[in-house]
Amino acid sequence: MIRIVVTGGTFDKEYNELTGTLFFKETHLPEMLRLGRSRVDVSIRALLMIDSLEMTDSDRTLIVDQCREAAASRIVVTHGTDTMVDTARALARERPPAMGKTIVLTGAMVPYAFGSSDGLFNLGSALSFVQVLTPGVYIAMNGRCFQWDRVRKNRETGVFEPV
Amino acid sequence: MIRIVVTGGTFDKEYNELTGTLFFKETHLPEMLRLGRSRVDVSIRALLMIDSLEMTDSDRTLIVDQCREAAASRIVVTHGTDTMVDTARALARERPPAMGKTIVLTGAMVPYAFGSSDGLFNLGSALSFVQVLTPGVYIAMNGRCFQWDRVRKNRETGVFEPV
Amino acid sequence: MIRIVVTGGTFDKEYNELTGTLFFKETHLPEMLRLGRSRVDVSIRALLMIDSLEMTDSDRTLIVDQCREAAASRIVVTHGTDTMVDTARALARERPPAMGKTIVLTGAMVPYAFGSSDGLFNLGSALSFVQVLTPGVYIAMNGRCFQWDRVRKNRETGVFEPV
Amino acid sequence: MIRIVVTGGTFDKEYNELTGTLFFKETHLPEMLRLGRSRVDVSIRALLMIDSLEMTDSDRTLIVDQCREAAASRIVVTHGTDTMVDTARALARERPPAMGKTIVLTGAMVPYAFGSSDGLFNLGSALSFVQVLTPGVYIAMNGRCFQWDRVRKNRETGVFEPV
Repeated sequence: MIRIVVTGGTFDKEYNELTGTLFFKETHLPEMLRLGRSRVDVSIRALLMIDSLEMTDSDRTLIVDQCREAAASRIVVTHGTDTMVDTARALARERPPAMGKTIVLTGAMVPYAFGSSDGLFNLGSALSFVQVLTPGVYIAMNGRCFQWDRVRKNRETGVFEPV
Repeated sequence: MIRIVVTGGTFDKEYNELTGTLFFKETHLPEMLRLGRSRVDVSIRALLMIDSLEMTDSDRTLIVDQCREAAASRIVVTHGTDTMVDTARALARERPPAMGKTIVLTGAMVPYAFGSSDGLFNLGSALSFVQVLTPGVYIAMNGRCFQWDRVRKNRETGVFEPV
Repeated sequence: MIRIVVTGGTFDKEYNELTGTLFFKETHLPEMLRLGRSRVDVSIRALLMIDSLEMTDSDRTLIVDQCREAAASRIVVTHGTDTMVDTARALARERPPAMGKTIVLTGAMVPYAFGSSDGLFNLGSALSFVQVLTPGVYIAMNGRCFQWDRVRKNRETGVFEPV
Repeated sequence: MIRIVVTGGTFDKEYNELTGTLFFKETHLPEMLRLGRSRVDVSIRALLMIDSLEMTDSDRTLIVDQCREAAASRIVVTHGTDTMVDTARALARERPPAMGKTIVLTGAMVPYAFGSSDGLFNLGSALSFVQVLTPGVYIAMNGRCFQWDRVRKNRETGVFEPV
């Protein structure tokens, strides 16, 4: 069984047609898994629903606690891309390899609800990597997978690249 | 570098609005990789553009030849779901493990062009599995990955399941 | 109040992912009106759900009866494009102008469910024309509106054109 | 020939995936007309590309001038919904009925680029109303058409309603 911990991010943003602004309502994860005809055994936990630029230390502690206490040894965390690496670092401090846990963070550049999103591709990618990688903390974006301390988001191109 | 061998299948079917029937035009693979913001280093070879129910032995020989002669050691084959297992078997006869090749077949239940396709999810999945799995022939569908001889398509549910 | 008589056609076709063929399930009209944020007062009657190439004389009689007996004086008929003109002719025999009825037939070249359909555009068009045109039988396609006896579908281009 | 004057509005907003904000790039009108398989003879003039809340008096003067000087007697103006009624009022001051001009303003609640937009429905509607209504200034939204001085946008529901 794979645990999916939802924290919000672009993945789950929607357009509020009354105000013309972006906001969070509910997670699209179940719908995305249905669309992907996924038969991976997952349990989804909608933990947070926030923009990762607004994520505080106590939010990160929440995520870390969730992952530590999860019964599952394989965990996908959906997350805003801007501070994904920071949360990955916080998770790595818990030494997931020692706990035998494989944690893969993923996100999207375009909201799933906007039709032309990279979210479905990234979800397929993250769910796949998490099934086969050895314990550790990883970031799956752009079809690639990086160790948590070997990657950064290039703010100018929107691409995750090796460091 | 990953080789993507395109053979058609539901993945690439389109709707002909003049005849009301489904047909093949060009592969959607480049567009799908763009949508997924993929930065995986790939080269795409549009080998066939057919329904897998119409695939002949000589078509399969073509695919096998392509995979054998490819310089890449990691190969994704997009394929119709109905005879995907048959092609996987033909590929396995070439003993890819001995050649050090990892080959992952994938497909879609709904054409990518129809908007609500599982294709993007499956492509993200197959591209991820192919990067990390040891040499062999695999089928990546429904978010899962199977050894070629441990899977069948359930025609009644449309789901790939272990045998 | 506007009556919408649904007869099927490409408008309402869907993709059966188990058989790889097109079929009819339920009409998408309510969903389309929601998407269009329509506030036009309508009542929808799903009368038939067929390909217009398979429409028989008795099917046409059904449609004619529905329109004659409808309390509404303004009626939109969704219909396959191939024999839309034939049904318009059958409706015109009932002399809708004498009955004070404005009937607008419309359809789609691409199924609404396939994402890139002309259906929503045509529905907005037909619903608008029906509100303002004088009694008679019309065909609204390609953003234009034709008297029933001044139009034909060009099978080679898929476009409705004046005759 | 129908003139389409583009001024921006939600219709043409896009998502900037690098900043996570909404912005304007190019108008989607040509693409929308293609999707709708429109064969209405139109010429498109991209005059402004702004949010209607930021529209100034001089912007409105630009729009009024465009409509006055257009050779076409039938004009569709795409416009943000928030101040659409204000621009309609400015246009009405020019006495379009006396000039023999039919001007229909329309817009969208959701950006066309976001997939589930009412824009295509509204465009089909506005293009249809403009072809048949007598000279005057109108607003076409929610499948309905209002005289410019008989309508307001309900900010709480997002719906245009009669006054």
